[in-house]
Amino acid sequence: MIKVGIIGAGRIGKVHAESITNYVPNAEIKGIADPYIDDETEEWANSMGIPNVYKDYKEILTDSEIEAVLVCSSTDTHSQISIEAAKAGKHIFCEKPIDHDLDKIHEVLNVVEEEGVKFQVGFNRRFDHNFKAVKEAVEAGKVGEPHIIKITSRDPEAPPIDYVKLSGGIFLDMTIHDFDMVRYLSGSEVEEVYAAGEVLVDPEIGEAGDVDTAVITLKLKNGAIAVIDNSREAAYGYDQRAEVFGSKGSVKVTNDRESTAVVSTEKGVTKEKPLYFFLERYMESFADEIKQFVNAVANDTEVPVDGTDGLKPILIGLAAQKSLEKGRPVKPSQIAKN
Amino acid sequence: MIKVGIIGAGRIGKVHAESITNYVPNAEIKGIADPYIDDETEEWANSMGIPNVYKDYKEILTDSEIEAVLVCSSTDTHSQISIEAAKAGKHIFCEKPIDHDLDKIHEVLNVVEEEGVKFQVGFNRRFDHNFKAVKEAVEAGKVGEPHIIKITSRDPEAPPIDYVKLSGGIFLDMTIHDFDMVRYLSGSEVEEVYAAGEVLVDPEIGEAGDVDTAVITLKLKNGAIAVIDNSREAAYGYDQRAEVFGSKGSVKVTNDRESTAVVSTEKGVTKEKPLYFFLERYMESFADEIKQFVNAVANDTEVPVDGTDGLKPILIGLAAQKSLEKGRPVKPSQIAKN
Amino acid sequence: MIKVGIIGAGRIGKVHAESITNYVPNAEIKGIADPYIDDETEEWANSMGIPNVYKDYKEILTDSEIEAVLVCSSTDTHSQISIEAAKAGKHIFCEKPIDHDLDKIHEVLNVVEEEGVKFQVGFNRRFDHNFKAVKEAVEAGKVGEPHIIKITSRDPEAPPIDYVKLSGGIFLDMTIHDFDMVRYLSGSEVEEVYAAGEVLVDPEIGEAGDVDTAVITLKLKNGAIAVIDNSREAAYGYDQRAEVFGSKGSVKVTNDRESTAVVSTEKGVTKEKPLYFFLERYMESFADEIKQFVNAVANDTEVPVDGTDGLKPILIGLAAQKSLEKGRPVKPSQIAKN
Amino acid sequence: MIKVGIIGAGRIGKVHAESITNYVPNAEIKGIADPYIDDETEEWANSMGIPNVYKDYKEILTDSEIEAVLVCSSTDTHSQISIEAAKAGKHIFCEKPIDHDLDKIHEVLNVVEEEGVKFQVGFNRRFDHNFKAVKEAVEAGKVGEPHIIKITSRDPEAPPIDYVKLSGGIFLDMTIHDFDMVRYLSGSEVEEVYAAGEVLVDPEIGEAGDVDTAVITLKLKNGAIAVIDNSREAAYGYDQRAEVFGSKGSVKVTNDRESTAVVSTEKGVTKEKPLYFFLERYMESFADEIKQFVNAVANDTEVPVDGTDGLKPILIGLAAQKSLEKGRPVKPSQIAKN
Repeated sequence: MIKVGIIGAGRIGKVHAESITNYVPNAEIKGIADPYIDDETEEWANSMGIPNVYKDYKEILTDSEIEAVLVCSSTDTHSQISIEAAKAGKHIFCEKPIDHDLDKIHEVLNVVEEEGVKFQVGFNRRFDHNFKAVKEAVEAGKVGEPHIIKITSRDPEAPPIDYVKLSGGIFLDMTIHDFDMVRYLSGSEVEEVYAAGEVLVDPEIGEAGDVDTAVITLKLKNGAIAVIDNSREAAYGYDQRAEVFGSKGSVKVTNDRESTAVVSTEKGVTKEKPLYFFLERYMESFADEIKQFVNAVANDTEVPVDGTDGLKPILIGLAAQKSLEKGRPVKPSQIAKN
Repeated sequence: MIKVGIIGAGRIGKVHAESITNYVPNAEIKGIADPYIDDETEEWANSMGIPNVYKDYKEILTDSEIEAVLVCSSTDTHSQISIEAAKAGKHIFCEKPIDHDLDKIHEVLNVVEEEGVKFQVGFNRRFDHNFKAVKEAVEAGKVGEPHIIKITSRDPEAPPIDYVKLSGGIFLDMTIHDFDMVRYLSGSEVEEVYAAGEVLVDPEIGEAGDVDTAVITLKLKNGAIAVIDNSREAAYGYDQRAEVFGSKGSVKVTNDRESTAVVSTEKGVTKEKPLYFFLERYMESFADEIKQFVNAVANDTEVPVDGTDGLKPILIGLAAQKSLEKGRPVKPSQIAKN
Repeated sequence: MIKVGIIGAGRIGKVHAESITNYVPNAEIKGIADPYIDDETEEWANSMGIPNVYKDYKEILTDSEIEAVLVCSSTDTHSQISIEAAKAGKHIFCEKPIDHDLDKIHEVLNVVEEEGVKFQVGFNRRFDHNFKAVKEAVEAGKVGEPHIIKITSRDPEAPPIDYVKLSGGIFLDMTIHDFDMVRYLSGSEVEEVYAAGEVLVDPEIGEAGDVDTAVITLKLKNGAIAVIDNSREAAYGYDQRAEVFGSKGSVKVTNDRESTAVVSTEKGVTKEKPLYFFLERYMESFADEIKQFVNAVANDTEVPVDGTDGLKPILIGLAAQKSLEKGRPVKPSQIAKN
Repeated sequence: MIKVGIIGAGRIGKVHAESITNYVPNAEIKGIADPYIDDETEEWANSMGIPNVYKDYKEILTDSEIEAVLVCSSTDTHSQISIEAAKAGKHIFCEKPIDHDLDKIHEVLNVVEEEGVKFQVGFNRRFDHNFKAVKEAVEAGKVGEPHIIKITSRDPEAPPIDYVKLSGGIFLDMTIHDFDMVRYLSGSEVEEVYAAGEVLVDPEIGEAGDVDTAVITLKLKNGAIAVIDNSREAAYGYDQRAEVFGSKGSVKVTNDRESTAVVSTEKGVTKEKPLYFFLERYMESFADEIKQFVNAVANDTEVPVDGTDGLKPILIGLAAQKSLEKGRPVKPSQIAKN
């Protein structure tokens, strides 16, 4: 039984807490910490059977019974807390992104290596039943050598403008999952990025210096070409699709729906919209990533998404940002060197 | 080049004329006859390059150059004209049903046999790309031994009540195609029929002594069970589906649509309705049945749908009628004996 | 917090225990009883945090803290245990079927009424996301007045022959869920049943006096016609579909799959098979039926599936059996009178 | 009745001849010309009822009865023959591309304008039922303002290497249809092109200086971003899909198949592959483009695809070529100026 501490009691912290309670039999939550903890959250923690609720996350780092921590705090604290946790000898599950700053990411990865603790990054979509099915088909050789990888990733509605301003931009906030997915599905690294972006959803997003609609082309080391299309607002819901096309064929996944119901009337033949909310869509993947993290800790095996997997999408995202600014393709390796 | 005469210049006669002109290179129409021929039809015949237009079909039967006739006249004249055509030595394509009266059907089949002419019945759906795909999968052994055969056959709207009154009832008018399809797909004969029928679409249909909604269960000689569901009115269009389920799996076909377009909006994910009109839906099958009839004449080979194929669905239809009246299963073989 | 006892620690008893633990926050399991309890089950109970494990279910009935019991024992004990539980003042969730014997069912319903306890029957499919979507579309008037109701229900493989012998026959064991579904989706009662059945999957099933393939036609009080097709063995998995066709259109649901993946190669375009195992397919519905039972107890509201809902499908099943024997339609009301 | 001459009796010339004969009632073919005419083609022309077969296309241009010509000769002769035809006062249907050389295209467009003849370019896909459905949904405002346009266009197999060498490269030979489709679906012009291309299908294509796999990003005047993915070889057949995503939702079309058949077995649930051959896939669109050309001539109305529609995709294609060479985005307007 692995004792776990959770740092950050916001939406994703709670999701992970519930996953552990319901789906991870070999883990228990010993404490949760959040500087803004309120009565409601405290009540929720009680109902979950979490014995300790703290304002200060250091209480968790100093609890010697706790073997592993989940870093679910605000993005700007991920790297600092991860470093402290590693130094305290805790295994770490860190929400994405590790940081927007490359130096800080490298510091985290260095400390983690020195301290010999496990470090998993929260790219949950790798654990989704659909994307896993694509990966399995590719690995089983069903599509042959990958030639074209296509990802459609559109949010149901744009986030509040205050969130946009702090998000690091669409490429680091939203597309980062898709960059990870390209690496995961192709099994290859990104050599060059070209990003086309526009402000078509909300002018305020443009005023905040960001785009809300983008198509990003990625040249991969293995010769394949990947293309991602993003929108901050799909009227019909959360649109999450992928296709790998290769020398022997293709594998595609499309959206999950609440039911398979199809209604046929004089007006047309209508099925349900894609699931709207990312937690609803990806709930099972959130549970599975934590289960696998706990198993990696319990069995001392490799984590399924490591520090490099956390770093690379950031490099690609920074290259995409630069490509958009400069109006030309940019290599992530050039970003890395700067 | 086979010279063909068409008897009956109504909707289906015109369809066959156009098929021959556009798709059957080894046939030409030498004449068309209809007692109610009007200027518009005459003009149409001219535009089609049909050299002779008659009021009296006997002009066609006495034209020694004409080798084959298409009997597309009103149902109550099918058997009489077929008999005369056979005696005139013409090969015959006869629209379904041959007749509603068993004695007349037997007389047709006898004369046809005596005269040694070819006789094909217009069960066009056997030539439809979807139903052929089911047949081919079954014959290729893909579903193993057939266990359950399901046919959904629903019209987009009920015919005029005057038509209903002369139609011979839903089983002889509409389900007869489905009875043929059960024989075609199963490769087996029907041993027993149980029909449940209701008047749910239009009370006038009930007043005319017919039903508009029906579910018919058929026990087949090979042990399989078939079930047909019919409605005179499907709000969303012409609903034509089939499934053969067997020891190794199933094969299913669903409806054709005008395009593959799918529109996703806040309101739902909508595709097109099934094609609405039977001519639109089955156009290609009408062309193909005539092409194969002409080829059978030209090459002196067997017709793909023969007189027995015309007779059997009538027997099943009469059994279904009796089952509905009596409220119990009825064997077509008992109908045949009477 | 409702304290619950579970009687029967077989497959379904364990499923319900796990549902309560993971999904029903206002219930806890105080004890579980099974005459054949073994070490493995005891260990499982410990891991679930169930404090008491008994061989004798009476220990549960005499525990005054326990408000509600789940009767998950073998079918032949459902009625006796339900009667005792009602007399002990416990609210009851009883697995289907209540009994195969009508007198015993009536006795259960009478005692339950006298004692004023809640009594819910385990027709879990009503809680399935797909079937609920059909029900909601029908209730929202999307398809108008129901005319034809179609249910396809095929198991992935035939049960062991020893199970078949004790099962009460396909209609009481398997089709009973579909009879319930017809009542649920139509909101109407069954007036007459005609069953066609064959032995096509396994001759041993025939030797045991049962059939393995069936098509059942049901005439409903509201005029609609329902038809169910069953097979004990679908090579491609567990096939669970439904359609309600009405005056304004239709609503259909088809199978759930492990993922939306579609693989296109030279050989064809292939998607995943339906989920194979009923627990996998219906897991969510098992959880939801128990959640709703607990809520009915907690809030003293009506249970969603009551004793009458448990009785009626048995009557329909007995009518289907008699129809198969006699080769003619049979009314459930005639069964009820005997 | 419009008298038509066809110049070029290769595959596409024959297709157009058959369309006119079967589907265009107000046109007749008076002659066909091809320098390489052989006995087989002559026989075919006879069977089609084409009265004149020439080696020299000038025979057609000097026939004063012929009002319109179809230029179906080899690509390198399109512009020269079009110019001569215009000067002879013939209306012109010219196969795509008009030419690979911009000066020649401009010369054609100038002469056509001076002579006041109609000039339609053979972008047949605009007449395809699927792409038309997308266009209609967009024009009806169903998806709101277009934000992202996606086109997948993959051939079933690479053409012979000798064809590749003369093709003008993938962008002018294959993608040109997709560039036209972007303009057609978006109703907007292309401002900038970025092309990523690789040789993944056949190294010989690379040796010939071309690519066989490409992803092309297009920035449009209306702010939308379009993306095309191409492959010379899709193992599963001819893959022709499109999506327009906008402020109110999306419309998508996918491939046509030979039938709707779905086979479910132990191995999976399999539907048919996309239609393999472009003539099979687009037959109806070839017929419709000619029908509309003839109607434009007969009624003196505008042709549906004019000279500008022929020119613009060439500019985009040349920009794509340059982008690929230079490794950066290129504006078609810059190509036009050179």
